[in-house]
Amino acid sequence: MLELKDFEAAADRLKNVIHTIPLSTSSTFSAISGAEVYLKYENQQKTGSFKVRGAYNKIMKRYAEGDLHAVVASSAGNHAQGVAFAAASVGVKATIVMPRSTPIAKVSATQGYGAEVVLAGTIYDEAYAKACEICEQTGAEFIHPFDDEDVMAGQGTIALELLRDLPFVDMIFVPTGGGGLLSGIAACAKQINPRIQVIGVQAEGAPAIANSFRAGVLTPSDTVRTIADGIAVKTPGEHTFQYIRQYVDRVVTVSDDDIASTILLLLERAKQVVEPAGASSLAAVLTGKVDTKGKKVVCVLSGGNIDVSFIHKIVEKGLVTRCRHLKFSTIMPDAPGALENFAHLVADQNANIIRFQHDRVQADLEIGEAIIQVVCEVGGVEHAKRLIDALTQHGYHIFTTQV
Amino acid sequence: MLELKDFEAAADRLKNVIHTIPLSTSSTFSAISGAEVYLKYENQQKTGSFKVRGAYNKIMKRYAEGDLHAVVASSAGNHAQGVAFAAASVGVKATIVMPRSTPIAKVSATQGYGAEVVLAGTIYDEAYAKACEICEQTGAEFIHPFDDEDVMAGQGTIALELLRDLPFVDMIFVPTGGGGLLSGIAACAKQINPRIQVIGVQAEGAPAIANSFRAGVLTPSDTVRTIADGIAVKTPGEHTFQYIRQYVDRVVTVSDDDIASTILLLLERAKQVVEPAGASSLAAVLTGKVDTKGKKVVCVLSGGNIDVSFIHKIVEKGLVTRCRHLKFSTIMPDAPGALENFAHLVADQNANIIRFQHDRVQADLEIGEAIIQVVCEVGGVEHAKRLIDALTQHGYHIFTTQV
Repeated sequence: MLELKDFEAAADRLKNVIHTIPLSTSSTFSAISGAEVYLKYENQQKTGSFKVRGAYNKIMKRYAEGDLHAVVASSAGNHAQGVAFAAASVGVKATIVMPRSTPIAKVSATQGYGAEVVLAGTIYDEAYAKACEICEQTGAEFIHPFDDEDVMAGQGTIALELLRDLPFVDMIFVPTGGGGLLSGIAACAKQINPRIQVIGVQAEGAPAIANSFRAGVLTPSDTVRTIADGIAVKTPGEHTFQYIRQYVDRVVTVSDDDIASTILLLLERAKQVVEPAGASSLAAVLTGKVDTKGKKVVCVLSGGNIDVSFIHKIVEKGLVTRCRHLKFSTIMPDAPGALENFAHLVADQNANIIRFQHDRVQADLEIGEAIIQVVCEVGGVEHAKRLIDALTQHGYHIFTTQV
Repeated sequence: MLELKDFEAAADRLKNVIHTIPLSTSSTFSAISGAEVYLKYENQQKTGSFKVRGAYNKIMKRYAEGDLHAVVASSAGNHAQGVAFAAASVGVKATIVMPRSTPIAKVSATQGYGAEVVLAGTIYDEAYAKACEICEQTGAEFIHPFDDEDVMAGQGTIALELLRDLPFVDMIFVPTGGGGLLSGIAACAKQINPRIQVIGVQAEGAPAIANSFRAGVLTPSDTVRTIADGIAVKTPGEHTFQYIRQYVDRVVTVSDDDIASTILLLLERAKQVVEPAGASSLAAVLTGKVDTKGKKVVCVLSGGNIDVSFIHKIVEKGLVTRCRHLKFSTIMPDAPGALENFAHLVADQNANIIRFQHDRVQADLEIGEAIIQVVCEVGGVEHAKRLIDALTQHGYHIFTTQV
């Protein structure tokens, strides 16, 4: 079993390789939650996530033992980049097997750290099988993404750092999928101070550790469905689960909607880009999954590798939710001047039309009517209401679900 | 004239009030530019921008002198929040005059720091006039956003911090509009080490300081037009311009397009949200406006207060530029099964249709043809080309300007 000295040895190996990002306080998130919220920004870590810690600790330790010449991993995500970077730092060849569907950006990023990328299979299991095959053929060592004590010890170094910054922490919230980060942090923090509560956070659509924790036995999920790809794991580790049973206080779940609005808040208020898995810990605090009132709370924001098209979708959704984009439809006369009249009223309210569709072919329309679908940029709910009132006063029926 | 002791006094006042964010290195931006790039993330500063430094220094100094009971500022931007926060910290009443068109979010943020907000006028000049009126009526003191030596001294404390982190810096790139940040940093850095080059960066559409610097006399711009609202200033300060003439080496301009792609790179690679004005300094380095090869270069990223709908537009533009969203039109038979055939080919290439418009009413179409406009999500240029090739092979003419 991992002891404090294992975490200290890992921290020693990582010392000159990783970034040590001090805890940040957040008055915004403290005000929302009523807790004293501190954030551990592992999105700012080398390779954009905490995964480099475990990978480097494992690889460096095995390398120092003398007989490591090459490593293999299978991952389409942060573990791929962590292993690639760690292997390059140590000077060992890395082969990363990725499913064929992996976005080109992730393939390039991994190659950018000097790893050889092999594309194989359509799902993770097939990539994993290929990785095992390469290990057998070449004698390279497989680096597991989570179910390995050296990997867990690397991830647990986060606890050493945050306890140095905030020795009086009450609760630590940790995103969890396979359990490597959670087990590492929990084992380290609890051995230092058993009073500290460690809480695992999962996505509602990928709750294997939450279910396992409740049942007391490892309970894999048949399917996973969440925007938080970094913690979308069907089968948690056997080793990690042992540690989680022993050291973790609670495991809670958060919805994709809560994760998405937390990402948006982090963009706006903290000026930081955090990936969905990484934002889940803060989402749990902001939605009050655990009573944190008056407590000193650390949320580990585990990574920042989020695709730009995904940021686009999250922001778009946020704009609609907050009524910054108002979508509505209305009926207007199918006649010259009708559009001009409508556009004038909208302009008069200082609203900006960004999408407009006009349809005369619809069963429930009278002859001489057209239905239009509009998206307007507005300042928020109040502005949207003023716009709707003005249009209504001029005889338009406005159909919208937003306000 | 400001001397080193003035900057030290300002730093002393600011010590326990502001965040001191250490310089970050960036291997990504160093690789792109060939320079050794360091970033000063003032987007992480209290109130989301450097402006709090100057405002606090001014207000605290005047307060210590004994007769300050209230302050007034006119601003729709970062200065508003800086003054509001600084006044609240010192315990002095603040009134901020904002143009009526100011987004509600900025009004709330300023009120959130405890200031009274007065909405007046449609443009900045009218808000400024109202602010002067309030000062006359109440005896409150007007806090200028830039043309004030105490404000400049506060902004210049950035130079003290970055020289402590990187004493051997060769060049400092500074976003500039009115000139407060540039004059403060230049006067401080040059008095410490005249070898350090200080370069001001302006938006092409708001080049008053660049023009003034070239002409040797203050040359206001008649109009300003740029996405970088934080540096969109028609008339630079008279005091700031004196300092700029004396201490600054060069003033360069960057385009809105370059600023937008720099913001996107910062989101993706640095996981940081930086506003357009703030990103201009890095944009100048990345586009090679100055020869920085092999030099130790600091870019001051002056703020992070960017509206979420603006992030949306920047990301959208980036997705099109990088061919992650492929827009094209094509002609298909206006007949049953035609759409199914087309959709099948697209799906076969693993591309995701996110917008689709169908039009039969167009003068240059034959009877029996329809024109369709499509936006597809693809992986990048290679993927886009594969999709176009596949459609072309099946008889579709693809009209696009993207690849």
